[in-house]
Amino acid sequence: MASPTNFASAVTILHNATIVTMDSDSRVFRNGGIVIERDAIRAVGQSSDILRQFSALAHRVVDLNGQIVLPGLINTHVHTSQQLGRGIADDVDLMTWLHDRIWPYESNMSEEDSYISTLLCGIELIHSGVTCFAEAGGQHVSGMARAVELLGLRACLAESTMDSGDGLPRSWAGRSAGDCIQSQKELYKKHHNTGDGRIRVWLGIRQIMNATDDLLLATRDTAKELKTGIHMHVAEIAYENQFVTETRKVDHGTVTHLENIQFLQNNLLAAHTVWVNPSQIDCLSRGGVKVSHCPAAAMRMLGFAPIREMLDAGICVSLGTDGAPSNNRMSIVDEMYLASLINKGREVHTNGTTDPTALPAETVLELATINGAKSVLWDNEIGSLEVGKKADLVVINPSSWTMVPLHDSISSLVYSMRTENVVSVMCNGLWIMKDKKILNVDEEEVLAKAKQASAEILKRAGIKIPSRMNFL
Amino acid sequence: MASPTNFASAVTILHNATIVTMDSDSRVFRNGGIVIERDAIRAVGQSSDILRQFSALAHRVVDLNGQIVLPGLINTHVHTSQQLGRGIADDVDLMTWLHDRIWPYESNMSEEDSYISTLLCGIELIHSGVTCFAEAGGQHVSGMARAVELLGLRACLAESTMDSGDGLPRSWAGRSAGDCIQSQKELYKKHHNTGDGRIRVWLGIRQIMNATDDLLLATRDTAKELKTGIHMHVAEIAYENQFVTETRKVDHGTVTHLENIQFLQNNLLAAHTVWVNPSQIDCLSRGGVKVSHCPAAAMRMLGFAPIREMLDAGICVSLGTDGAPSNNRMSIVDEMYLASLINKGREVHTNGTTDPTALPAETVLELATINGAKSVLWDNEIGSLEVGKKADLVVINPSSWTMVPLHDSISSLVYSMRTENVVSVMCNGLWIMKDKKILNVDEEEVLAKAKQASAEILKRAGIKIPSRMNFL
Repeated sequence: MASPTNFASAVTILHNATIVTMDSDSRVFRNGGIVIERDAIRAVGQSSDILRQFSALAHRVVDLNGQIVLPGLINTHVHTSQQLGRGIADDVDLMTWLHDRIWPYESNMSEEDSYISTLLCGIELIHSGVTCFAEAGGQHVSGMARAVELLGLRACLAESTMDSGDGLPRSWAGRSAGDCIQSQKELYKKHHNTGDGRIRVWLGIRQIMNATDDLLLATRDTAKELKTGIHMHVAEIAYENQFVTETRKVDHGTVTHLENIQFLQNNLLAAHTVWVNPSQIDCLSRGGVKVSHCPAAAMRMLGFAPIREMLDAGICVSLGTDGAPSNNRMSIVDEMYLASLINKGREVHTNGTTDPTALPAETVLELATINGAKSVLWDNEIGSLEVGKKADLVVINPSSWTMVPLHDSISSLVYSMRTENVVSVMCNGLWIMKDKKILNVDEEEVLAKAKQASAEILKRAGIKIPSRMNFL
Repeated sequence: MASPTNFASAVTILHNATIVTMDSDSRVFRNGGIVIERDAIRAVGQSSDILRQFSALAHRVVDLNGQIVLPGLINTHVHTSQQLGRGIADDVDLMTWLHDRIWPYESNMSEEDSYISTLLCGIELIHSGVTCFAEAGGQHVSGMARAVELLGLRACLAESTMDSGDGLPRSWAGRSAGDCIQSQKELYKKHHNTGDGRIRVWLGIRQIMNATDDLLLATRDTAKELKTGIHMHVAEIAYENQFVTETRKVDHGTVTHLENIQFLQNNLLAAHTVWVNPSQIDCLSRGGVKVSHCPAAAMRMLGFAPIREMLDAGICVSLGTDGAPSNNRMSIVDEMYLASLINKGREVHTNGTTDPTALPAETVLELATINGAKSVLWDNEIGSLEVGKKADLVVINPSSWTMVPLHDSISSLVYSMRTENVVSVMCNGLWIMKDKKILNVDEEEVLAKAKQASAEILKRAGIKIPSRMNFL
């Protein structure tokens, strides 16, 4: 739990920092200050003004010595349950990945495993500057919630939800759409708006090949009733579109079918969304659907999402890491770098040459902050450093060998910054990492538990990882 | 200079480590030991055997506590001169990049700037586990050599060499092929085989659009005479092939012309090599040409090199970072991760779907170690941990949040490892980084000098970086 020492006293001033607000005017204070009162931002401005106006009120004044302050980064697609499965499915084809590794692994997790996995994942997220994430739909939401509450993070949690499909593990088969909705309603009742308001419960759809139309429709209606969001993998692989075209009798796969059943609404967070054509992009845009772009996982397993086209169509695109067995780095810092590279490179295949000006750094920063907040339906409180918003922020040290010299500080945050540069992280007005030390859990203890728990899951699940080299 | 404290005493044993030898049998010792005598490896094997046989001889015995030992990573394409220009050309088109930013910047560098730039670059290389690099051809080889000697790294240095082309800065124009060769011969005489044999001097060709056939032929012949290598950017952009087709009257651009003039020999290290067709891949293979694949820079500015096809054709492919203004991370650790992702994703455009099994982790590790050594014509002494080779190695700590759990230790080195995990680096039998501390230079002092020197170069060169946001 938050100890007295990491509690930002009633009024805290951070000053002498480059403050990148990500507000609608793209304001950056070269030598800025920010005033935090309890869990919220009371003022942002020039250091001198802030000190003059608020020093008398402040319980704590912190000189950031020229470091950079960003809004907390937002990871809009994470499988916290899969963190213990990092490395169990590298370099294997998709069917092996799903049927022989991931499903056996996930279906053998206990609630305690989910808790440990989320703790481990959360530690990596915090080190990467993340203050808020959207769970893609995993095992044991109660375990996730326990971990998120303890870590001090903000999250939209969702249960892995399937009511159909081939090859499911025995313990997962046989759930009806009604069972799925009932279970999620109970989770909502129990965990929504807990953890000082940091935890929200969303509805999940694992993917359309594991969802009947009954489940899709009930999910759509329940989300409306509960005023919450829906997190779903959409148009991940070409085969998915083929499957939907055949089983749902539509012309162009998943997005078209979702449009037909009025599922494309502004509370839908569609992950990946790689295999979509121009008319489907229009459908997503008209519906106000948000898209989580996961560059690493997509490049490894799915394909190149048409991000430029989606942004041009006015779609809110944000960034996700996906799960540890698909990536394996769970770092939005790396995903920012990758998003820029991939989307510059992808132009080769549409225009015959890369476009080094595509998806510029300032746009990538929007994806990771304000667009992330919009994607998780929380932009009234997070995503930028503005008066009245929650105090979710990251302190970055740019004065190291990874970023010097800093000729273009904005692009350096995207192209040069690494997790090494993330020094301190505040969520909801509380420091959750300070000087690279995670404050609310003991990292070493979590690592030790994670090693043990993950080895036991693999044993229970009968998963064996072939050896790659000649081990002696 | 190397201080007495970092000198590995006459006989040092490192033990209790996972030793990934990268030898031709792909041997990995789960609990291995390695004996270093002066600058070379005297023995590698099981810890117990090593301790039994060599403890009596050893001046120092180091318990590595289960950490991982790899051969020193090799970066086969780096512009050390460009390190001070990191961030000066982000998100701009190629012509702006070259004519308005890079050439003005490089042509305004002093010998001291080159020294500082190489120091800064070297610090980043060492933190990323690199013990040997190939300079792509830059400014003031004497400055580079001073820095490399001090840092304790191993390098093949080359001068930026051009005798023709449009739009060159005034101070560079007017050099003849003869001037270029003469200058490089002098550098060879002065610096080749210095720094305890760690420094070699190669010949450079910046690119074919800045080289007459006279220069190409004289370079080919001089390299043969001096028994050294040639480093050249080859087939970087589609326009280059077009230019060569028109000016040299050949059918298929650069590689075809180089084949026609017998330039494709086994001492040629071709960087990028993106725009090559199957018959040109055959030419490269027949000639024994080595290819430096630079995933980040290529994706950003050039395109997707046909790496699978080149490896299938038996070409020795290795990894490079390119220069700081093209990447901006100078980390072979990141390039390993990227190489795997990009080459899995690229299959979408050749086969309609990504291939998650393409370029598996063990192959990527070869690219960064033994293939790197072959590429710099030094595999008789480096690239793997084998008896008689030089003691160039990296110690990696896998027990942190970035890599736990370690279900597949080989793939984790490629997909999960980050520069954070690189703990200690030895080159030529001497520790050059220990417990993340660079030993031979003062990091803070180099950072301070780099900030100052880079600001002054930009001022001299008249380079202005437009502001991206609303700075107040």
